[in-house]
Amino acid sequence: MSIVRVPLEDRSYSIRIEPGLLGEAGRLIADLGIRGRVAVISDRTVSGLFAKTLIGALQTAGLEASLFTVPDGETSKSLSQAEKLYTELIRFGLSRDGLIVALGGGVVGDLAGFTAATLLRGIPFVQVPTTLLSQVDSSVGGKVGVNHSLGKNLIGCFHQPVLVIMDPLTLDTLPMRERWSGAAEMVKAALIRDAVFFERLERELEDWMVLEDAGRLSEALAACCRIKAEVVGRDERESGLRRILNFGHTVGHALESASGYGVFRHGEALVYGLAWALDLSRTFGLLGEAVFQRVDSVLRRFPLPPIPESVDAERIVEHFTRDKKNKSDGLHLVLLNDIGRPVIRPVRDFDFRESVGRLLNRQIINL
Amino acid sequence: MSIVRVPLEDRSYSIRIEPGLLGEAGRLIADLGIRGRVAVISDRTVSGLFAKTLIGALQTAGLEASLFTVPDGETSKSLSQAEKLYTELIRFGLSRDGLIVALGGGVVGDLAGFTAATLLRGIPFVQVPTTLLSQVDSSVGGKVGVNHSLGKNLIGCFHQPVLVIMDPLTLDTLPMRERWSGAAEMVKAALIRDAVFFERLERELEDWMVLEDAGRLSEALAACCRIKAEVVGRDERESGLRRILNFGHTVGHALESASGYGVFRHGEALVYGLAWALDLSRTFGLLGEAVFQRVDSVLRRFPLPPIPESVDAERIVEHFTRDKKNKSDGLHLVLLNDIGRPVIRPVRDFDFRESVGRLLNRQIINL
Repeated sequence: MSIVRVPLEDRSYSIRIEPGLLGEAGRLIADLGIRGRVAVISDRTVSGLFAKTLIGALQTAGLEASLFTVPDGETSKSLSQAEKLYTELIRFGLSRDGLIVALGGGVVGDLAGFTAATLLRGIPFVQVPTTLLSQVDSSVGGKVGVNHSLGKNLIGCFHQPVLVIMDPLTLDTLPMRERWSGAAEMVKAALIRDAVFFERLERELEDWMVLEDAGRLSEALAACCRIKAEVVGRDERESGLRRILNFGHTVGHALESASGYGVFRHGEALVYGLAWALDLSRTFGLLGEAVFQRVDSVLRRFPLPPIPESVDAERIVEHFTRDKKNKSDGLHLVLLNDIGRPVIRPVRDFDFRESVGRLLNRQIINL
Repeated sequence: MSIVRVPLEDRSYSIRIEPGLLGEAGRLIADLGIRGRVAVISDRTVSGLFAKTLIGALQTAGLEASLFTVPDGETSKSLSQAEKLYTELIRFGLSRDGLIVALGGGVVGDLAGFTAATLLRGIPFVQVPTTLLSQVDSSVGGKVGVNHSLGKNLIGCFHQPVLVIMDPLTLDTLPMRERWSGAAEMVKAALIRDAVFFERLERELEDWMVLEDAGRLSEALAACCRIKAEVVGRDERESGLRRILNFGHTVGHALESASGYGVFRHGEALVYGLAWALDLSRTFGLLGEAVFQRVDSVLRRFPLPPIPESVDAERIVEHFTRDKKNKSDGLHLVLLNDIGRPVIRPVRDFDFRESVGRLLNRQIINL
């Protein structure tokens, strides 16, 4: 079993990764010393696949566990869904010495985590991510929340899990497109922190996607989690270093929003965002041509839908400007000096506009 | 100016107390280094009295401040009211380097604090409590939240303010009944932690109620805040010591609930709750007769509405039982060994039932 520690003083926790670990979840959770009831929160699809195994494991370990399901998809990440859960969980008798377990992808993790953060002033919670994207990114770091009609993730807190349990075998049932979406965050993790892992990714990416070797995939998951754990451990609340985790996300988010959510998977938009950030880094003379080409050729291995013709540069830039308003000191972007070496630079309107134009004219990433 | 420090490592903050301090709030808040916009949240009544002074002080200090009002009363402590605030605050352009200021009593502080805790994963906030109850209790310690249809304060977090500003002159307009309600928490604070302050309270209580000397009242507020700051500093999240702050509240809350909210002010129900806890402490041989009589004679100085005939022992006990369900290890109560010396004891059904009976039969506190 790979164990990655997230070092956050009294909020420290471990991430445990092993093929077949879902069946061991009862024992791992019982070892936390939970005395109250356990509420497993999941969506319809994921609960149909894995809830029986998980609930069974919890009950075998002597815990009183019950399942609470929410509808599939991003619309469940809402305050009204959280309110329904509050009612169900209070009626269930969940207490502060109980536990919430999030079984699913990012939507379930964010919603269940937010519910855990805000019910009874905080209930411990365990993440059991079942998608690649949530395993390599959203289940680690304590960002939880729901969407608001004015924007995604506007309502939320930092609430660290007490344990993260990853079973790469849950990826068996994950559609290929979702696997590639998760892989985009793996590329990002390598680019901002780990040149050795990037080399490995260059060699093994397609093998991971077809789940050829669960052991090697587990090691790759652990590498990503180690990167995130190290960054989060140094800057839990994103006052500095943690911002490097947003590498590629400025344009990624803008593309998701400007194309209308649903056109791109998160990771697909991120690949375009990474390409844009690399282009800008090269334009600024931060990144050499050879490294640019090397990363670019990895990005080209991703199967991607094209950017819709309806997306124009102005809408992307508008999204930036709104982001900018949210920081009083202007638009600071994460760029790249080399693989594993991010830098944060203030960027003028003119420069990022030009680069957005190149992206939309298919001059950056040519698929 | 009295300054009380709440020692919570990187979440430490100070409480500043001085007559007329509201007019200085702009300077104090500007000194925090806030770069973004400032949202002042208040209710209709309090904003009519003090918002002009506060907003003026903030603007004079160079801050971009705006007022957001909610309806008066406990019904504003709801998730739907928080949702309205989210929308208004996002539209206002509030960012993580901005600030929320809670101007009002406990309802405004709890609601504004919860909104601050959950918008954009946490915005700094300042408490400006304007009632005695919020000055001596709810504005310090970081408990924020809203009510749920199944119970009060069931939704919430711990989110510490970055500063608390108390101006005892705001109590001028506070109805006498509200002042006595706040005084009940002052008695509780003295009983659990500070025999010297209790002596002072015995001498000065009525003077504080008529605001005879703002300087002496400020010292009394500071004494209460010091007690709470010390307890919270040792146990921020109520895993142990902080539970002593609930002294008298078990029956206090049950009385409020069983009589239908609105019959008792919080502090009035608390006086009955304190009387009950003292009776139980004496029954258990923890508290001597002389000390009991001494405290009892202070409680008798409170003007209190009688307990309605409709409240019966079974409803009070039922409320306990629900509390009990919320802890897997049974009903542990805070009792008193002496003034300033609380103890936590498990109490059997039989004992607290008998004591509840004496309370309802007017055998404990005879008004």
